[in-house]
Amino acid sequence: MTFAIHGLAVSRGIAIGRAVVVASSRMEVVHYFIRPEQIESEIERARSARNAVIDELRRLQEDMPKDAPGELDALLDVHLMLLQDEALAEAIRHWISDRLYNAEWALTTQLEIVSRQFDEMDDEYLRERKADLEQVVERILWHMKGAASPVAAPVAARAGTGADGAADTPLVLVAQDLSPADMLQFKSKVFAGFVTAVGGKTSHTAIVARSMDIPAVVGARAASQLIRQDDWIIIDGNEGVVIVDPTPMILAEYGFRQRQSELERERLSRLRYTPSITLDGQKVELLANIEQPGDGPAAVRAGAVGVGLFRTEFLFMGRSGNLPGEEEQYRAYREAIDGMQGMPVTIRTLDVGADKPLDKAQPKDYYLNPALGLRAIRWSLADTAMFRTQLRAILRAAAHGQIHLLFPMLAHRSEIEQTLAQLHQAQGELDARGVAYGKVKIGAMIEIPAAALTVRTFLRYFDFLSIGTNDLIQYTLAIDRADEAVAHLYDPLHPAVLRLIAEVIAAADAAGKSVSVCGEMAGDAGMTRLLLGLGLRSFSMHPAQILAIKQEILRADTGKLRPWAQAVVNSDSPGELLAP
Amino acid sequence: MTFAIHGLAVSRGIAIGRAVVVASSRMEVVHYFIRPEQIESEIERARSARNAVIDELRRLQEDMPKDAPGELDALLDVHLMLLQDEALAEAIRHWISDRLYNAEWALTTQLEIVSRQFDEMDDEYLRERKADLEQVVERILWHMKGAASPVAAPVAARAGTGADGAADTPLVLVAQDLSPADMLQFKSKVFAGFVTAVGGKTSHTAIVARSMDIPAVVGARAASQLIRQDDWIIIDGNEGVVIVDPTPMILAEYGFRQRQSELERERLSRLRYTPSITLDGQKVELLANIEQPGDGPAAVRAGAVGVGLFRTEFLFMGRSGNLPGEEEQYRAYREAIDGMQGMPVTIRTLDVGADKPLDKAQPKDYYLNPALGLRAIRWSLADTAMFRTQLRAILRAAAHGQIHLLFPMLAHRSEIEQTLAQLHQAQGELDARGVAYGKVKIGAMIEIPAAALTVRTFLRYFDFLSIGTNDLIQYTLAIDRADEAVAHLYDPLHPAVLRLIAEVIAAADAAGKSVSVCGEMAGDAGMTRLLLGLGLRSFSMHPAQILAIKQEILRADTGKLRPWAQAVVNSDSPGELLAP
Repeated sequence: MTFAIHGLAVSRGIAIGRAVVVASSRMEVVHYFIRPEQIESEIERARSARNAVIDELRRLQEDMPKDAPGELDALLDVHLMLLQDEALAEAIRHWISDRLYNAEWALTTQLEIVSRQFDEMDDEYLRERKADLEQVVERILWHMKGAASPVAAPVAARAGTGADGAADTPLVLVAQDLSPADMLQFKSKVFAGFVTAVGGKTSHTAIVARSMDIPAVVGARAASQLIRQDDWIIIDGNEGVVIVDPTPMILAEYGFRQRQSELERERLSRLRYTPSITLDGQKVELLANIEQPGDGPAAVRAGAVGVGLFRTEFLFMGRSGNLPGEEEQYRAYREAIDGMQGMPVTIRTLDVGADKPLDKAQPKDYYLNPALGLRAIRWSLADTAMFRTQLRAILRAAAHGQIHLLFPMLAHRSEIEQTLAQLHQAQGELDARGVAYGKVKIGAMIEIPAAALTVRTFLRYFDFLSIGTNDLIQYTLAIDRADEAVAHLYDPLHPAVLRLIAEVIAAADAAGKSVSVCGEMAGDAGMTRLLLGLGLRSFSMHPAQILAIKQEILRADTGKLRPWAQAVVNSDSPGELLAP
Repeated sequence: MTFAIHGLAVSRGIAIGRAVVVASSRMEVVHYFIRPEQIESEIERARSARNAVIDELRRLQEDMPKDAPGELDALLDVHLMLLQDEALAEAIRHWISDRLYNAEWALTTQLEIVSRQFDEMDDEYLRERKADLEQVVERILWHMKGAASPVAAPVAARAGTGADGAADTPLVLVAQDLSPADMLQFKSKVFAGFVTAVGGKTSHTAIVARSMDIPAVVGARAASQLIRQDDWIIIDGNEGVVIVDPTPMILAEYGFRQRQSELERERLSRLRYTPSITLDGQKVELLANIEQPGDGPAAVRAGAVGVGLFRTEFLFMGRSGNLPGEEEQYRAYREAIDGMQGMPVTIRTLDVGADKPLDKAQPKDYYLNPALGLRAIRWSLADTAMFRTQLRAILRAAAHGQIHLLFPMLAHRSEIEQTLAQLHQAQGELDARGVAYGKVKIGAMIEIPAAALTVRTFLRYFDFLSIGTNDLIQYTLAIDRADEAVAHLYDPLHPAVLRLIAEVIAAADAAGKSVSVCGEMAGDAGMTRLLLGLGLRSFSMHPAQILAIKQEILRADTGKLRPWAQAVVNSDSPGELLAP
């Protein structure tokens, strides 16, 4: 039966495919397709992890402290029963051999199905017992993490092989929510669309989907309950609607719309080699935001004249504790530079922390308000050995190309000074070792209201600024952009936000220093004229958005936009003035 | 053996007493002392709740769905074993009869002691099994909540009775953390001091302790592990040190210091009837922040000329779902007005939500960043029936005295307009019912950077403003004041914060509207001269702080302070200029 689920339209376009419903797990799990020849070894991997957990629990029972509560033994017995359940083993085999899911994915998919049985129970207490099953599964997952499969580039597997029988059917991903790590895994276009039950316009799912130019609907509340594995679904990323089990007539209509948007895309692609200059002759720099060292060439092909934001988180995430060394980082940064063929690369130091934990040892709810906690530069300054390792690797890479070094989340003068002292110390360490390194320009993200309000202090210390609009909006409005209960209040056009952005651009101009916007706003074609009018001449965005922004720039006259932009900023309802 | 634990000094003074270590529980639990004649009924209350849970689990076992996983039955058996454990029952009897703890407190204290056994186990997996015990205890606690004891004013019991053998020994409270609800319970000075393991300078514990003028040390990391029930401890709230099991010599030294600070307090008390006027004749309004309707008379005694902030949360918290009706609220607001003898009372509408959940049905970690979520006015506008009930009750109370109606957390013009429409509708509802109500002045909290940055919009709609410095600092700096990992970056003197405060005061002055500060800053004597210099003439704080602030005002000359305050705001390290 055809039905529709409404959510937020966060990434334009239409996708049609079969649903892959991903279970949410408390543990971050990698999802990828294996090759058919890996089926047996993958089943074995699941089995041996399970057996290891069984052995472990048995050992625990034997070594139980004398004074341990007697009930503990009985509890372990129950968990052993869960582990040895043949139905569980059989189901995991099914997901691996029939769907080519990796073992972790198979395990969490099955957990999700059993969890649903629990969820349907009337009594809350019984429902909560599923936690026991979750704990057992998590323990198996931990074991697998210790002995992960040697698949090199997990997701590439499916993209690269035709062996997978289902490989010609487009797949769309349906999940409760997707972690940044999941989205990194899914980058290489394995899925034709995304649907999540939670999230707002600027959730990670939305940002990554938009940046990959893949249709997505988030906040489709009941999606992960109502959509079953393998359902045919249409994702309408323009209207924010998900159509489940469509009739042939509906399918035909959406097929038509899909082709139309492909035509529009081709039209844009002709702008690739057109210089980015406004009608009144203002040159505008279009830069790329990238996440992996290998993303450079694609950025160049999309028309980027440099990298405005290279996020270095990819190097640090999903490693369960062992951080990348100087050499490994150096090679990654070097690869990014080489990929940009002499154009500048802006490398941002690590932005992880309370809101994007490196591992799950610290439970999420340990931090009451992770966005207001120990993250980004705060984290780096709390672990200076790690920080200087990253700085040394970047400095060494700078011997081979133009690097702009960017620091996230600075807000206090004391932090600026500590950061620069660390940079100085890192240089000293390289000098002492006699290792070659290059000069870098240094810059600061302006993404905390305090930074925007004291931008003149920042301009005294730094060569350039980069405005991170996503966080700046979040803090200025006190709105978590990922919280659907308040997502409607996350408003890039709030006069306070525009006032801060205008002040930062004006102050940087006055100081003769360059300023860029690297948040979502830079890739939003609806904002381009306003930012140009405020004096912005450098935009950094996902490569997929560059051509649409270039089209706006080619049609713009900054002389005319300037007074209008000032009026927008001074208005107390800028949204009304911005309508075309 | 004497040893010291270091933490943050958050509330000045010295306390010496026996430790009462409060277990942390996932459920909010009331803690109070019972009277000796209540021992038997209290033990019976614990027993019958436990029996009810046993019956309930047995019924669940009988009615188990046919397709339920087989292990579920075994799990319930284990939980039944835990419940029927005689050692548990015996321990609970002990805490009730020997320490006069109420049943909930007895249960959580015992849970804490058993949890420690688990915590000491080497294996993480075994350690986590304590969750089962916690769940069983929580279920008993829920049962008790449904059938709570009829003790009228829980904490008053101990204060009011001499029957409790230990009543003459001062007690100090040691906890992992204290919830706002706990702190409300402990208001009436049952404890001579507070120590918590977590929390920063502006955690709830710190704020309430300061406001009650009771010595406190927070962030004393290992405190709740290292300090045992009934240990003698000294809390040095000036230095942030907790001394456990002090020698007689140390005790004598701290006894001396304690008497000295009492002398200073007496000296201040002589200022009570002195008008609050600066050396150059500027009148300054000193208002009280209150939390309960009955707090008014104490505020008047402390020299307050009105209530600058009456938080209405007390009416809504700890009620597990059933919200207070119009009549109940009306009586509470009426009581507050009557207690102020004709002086104005500023009533703030409900400020609960994601960060202060009304009940625990929604787990804490449901919200990723509660401070950036659905709280305060956002919550009220999402439940307009509840909101208008509160508004009608306030309007009716306004028929009997001067009420200033204050709305928290506004940031968007659309929210302002929705809020005022609700107020208008509430008036219409009272008109329709023919119920008398009074005129109110309306005001907005300025506590989000966006509000401060668009203060001129706010001044067009409102009669007065009140700057909530705590939240304003938190959002401007993107620092959770309760997160000890970043608490050192929570800086009221950050130039961005001062700039926002200065702008709001200046804009209100220019518009001829009154503006007050009701955050922590208002009660901090180290900030008084700066705020006076910026033009502030209205301060609202806990009554206990009024005399110390008045002393600063009596010594101040605003003419001299003005240029200096401007220099402080324009400096990029205001802290240095502020030193005396």
